Amino acid sequence: MKRAQIVKPYEPLVVDTVAIPEPPPKGVVVKTSYSGVCHTDLHQWDNEISEGSNLVQFIDNPDYKLPVVPGHEMSGIVHSVGSQQDQGDDPLKVGDRVALYPWIGCGKCGFCNNGDSNICAKNLWLGFMLPGGYASYIIVPESKFAVKLPDSIPLDVACMFSCSGLTTYSAVVTARPAVEKAIVRKGKANLLIIGAGGLGLWSTQIAKHLFKVSTIITVADVNEEKLKVARERGAHETVCWDPSVSDGNAIQEAMKIGGYDAIIDYVNTTKTTNRAFHCLGMGGLLVMVGLFGGQAQYSLPKMVFCGKGVQGVIVGTLQSMKDMIKLVADEKLISPPMKYLKLEDVTETLKILREGKMTGRGVIDFNL
Amino acid sequence: MKRAQIVKPYEPLVVDTVAIPEPPPKGVVVKTSYSGVCHTDLHQWDNEISEGSNLVQFIDNPDYKLPVVPGHEMSGIVHSVGSQQDQGDDPLKVGDRVALYPWIGCGKCGFCNNGDSNICAKNLWLGFMLPGGYASYIIVPESKFAVKLPDSIPLDVACMFSCSGLTTYSAVVTARPAVEKAIVRKGKANLLIIGAGGLGLWSTQIAKHLFKVSTIITVADVNEEKLKVARERGAHETVCWDPSVSDGNAIQEAMKIGGYDAIIDYVNTTKTTNRAFHCLGMGGLLVMVGLFGGQAQYSLPKMVFCGKGVQGVIVGTLQSMKDMIKLVADEKLISPPMKYLKLEDVTETLKILREGKMTGRGVIDFNL
Repeated sequence: MKRAQIVKPYEPLVVDTVAIPEPPPKGVVVKTSYSGVCHTDLHQWDNEISEGSNLVQFIDNPDYKLPVVPGHEMSGIVHSVGSQQDQGDDPLKVGDRVALYPWIGCGKCGFCNNGDSNICAKNLWLGFMLPGGYASYIIVPESKFAVKLPDSIPLDVACMFSCSGLTTYSAVVTARPAVEKAIVRKGKANLLIIGAGGLGLWSTQIAKHLFKVSTIITVADVNEEKLKVARERGAHETVCWDPSVSDGNAIQEAMKIGGYDAIIDYVNTTKTTNRAFHCLGMGGLLVMVGLFGGQAQYSLPKMVFCGKGVQGVIVGTLQSMKDMIKLVADEKLISPPMKYLKLEDVTETLKILREGKMTGRGVIDFNL
Repeated sequence: MKRAQIVKPYEPLVVDTVAIPEPPPKGVVVKTSYSGVCHTDLHQWDNEISEGSNLVQFIDNPDYKLPVVPGHEMSGIVHSVGSQQDQGDDPLKVGDRVALYPWIGCGKCGFCNNGDSNICAKNLWLGFMLPGGYASYIIVPESKFAVKLPDSIPLDVACMFSCSGLTTYSAVVTARPAVEKAIVRKGKANLLIIGAGGLGLWSTQIAKHLFKVSTIITVADVNEEKLKVARERGAHETVCWDPSVSDGNAIQEAMKIGGYDAIIDYVNTTKTTNRAFHCLGMGGLLVMVGLFGGQAQYSLPKMVFCGKGVQGVIVGTLQSMKDMIKLVADEKLISPPMKYLKLEDVTETLKILREGKMTGRGVIDFNL
């Protein structure tokens, strides 16, 4: 099998060929069809992320070490099944089409036992602590982390359920109480989505389907072209936050509608989070998703006087991933645009991503 | 009637005598028994509060202007009743013992109509936009904002329900989902209360009664004497955060128990909030209450990776105040210690409060 590894930060990923692995007793091996290239892979490549005043090592986990096969968005076909695989209602079989849930925890703690392995303190994520999707075969330690797909969902779309799709679903569900409270209070809710990239577009689609018609969805981005796509995908309003728009002007615009009841920030830099904080209305909720890095600088008195809330969302649960797959299948949600690439071209793609010049979700196509 | 007014920031409050007011048609006039001196009165006296990098005018509301009768924690006896008072099930009568709900809104918006007048964008708070409790008689615009008291609750304790008590009740209720989720996940929850003053002590009592026995309540303060009182009032653990304790040490201690599942910060300075943020465990919630002022400086990646949340709480709803009164009466909760003073001595008391030398809640006793 082919794989691409990060061997040293910032250096080109090394592509090599190794033997196809055997399935672990309770798990499966999946032949990768598609593997998404996530912005987080870039931080992983750099091995650091900014917290504003300082740069920190990306994964502060003693089990994380280089070399590593990154990639945590993958779909494929079950290639082999372990000897002690869970024989539940509908066990996996060779040939099944699956999306992988990479946010595996220790499997023993209360977080893992209650379906919240994504915030287990000892993460064993695929693509980080365990080999990920930049490889033509992937070991899935337990078969429950390979989720069968409905026939109607193509495998390229399906790879996004692991991270970008799942995260947007979680973010929208996290924003829901604030949206619903606003509808009770005012008869309508104003939701702002910051970032019209892949995550923002998924979010727009999901919010349209999960929220009542009385929710007005606004998408903000620096790029008018991206905002056009957001409108096509269902955004009711868009606001261009190009560099000429000062915080003061952006906040003033938001205050014309009394501020937003909920904001989902897929960028999440010092600049966007501070602006978003001020654009919240009374009792509003800021859902923080993006990992560009930086530091929040919120006014403590305003946080209290205005009853504002901020909630960080790290991907989502296995159940949320299943819920999202069902929603996409049932409601025929449209995925964000994709750009296909070969495994050998992944270093080049990461560079394009760093320059902010990527249009659509980069997806490694293992048939290329 | 006697009243004390803030006429100019930082200058001694001016005490004078004016006529007892007439009740408004739908309201009542209450003869004040007790009126609490809140730390917020100090910001009001200064007319500014720090947001870290800049000082802002305390109340950013065109309806707020000096001179003002401050005071938003009051209990008393109904003195006169308006001609069109709400004749609901149990209308107020002259002589009724009441605590006042000062967080009045416009009365017309969806926040007000759904019981959330405390976060109405157009606040008409007693002690701010309308005359407050530093006066021997108070106009209550609508009788529903004067809440009848059970006989078992003394009037000095009752004045605290308006702000310090109500706020702590709201804060504990806001922390509840995080506490309950932790109990599901781990069989127990760790709750940290920052500040062992009046609010911290109320909180300790309320948390003991609202949460399961599997919640371990820890109280942090700089003062060992105050921590002793916190233990007497029910804290399971206390931690001294005197200036010799570095953030690093405080965080290291918190991490020994996996971080706190919920933290309520009654101080809420740049220092406490940043420390609290790091002391949160995975998926933990920081409830922000204190108004000392400053700026949050949270790491954006940590907020996301650890699924942390922060929620500002501004006092509470009228219903929460009623719920708290019932809880205190039914469970015989013990109020924080009080220190009685005369209206004429309020400037001196505010100075003592500014120096951080106040022990117990300062309460103006109108019988002195």
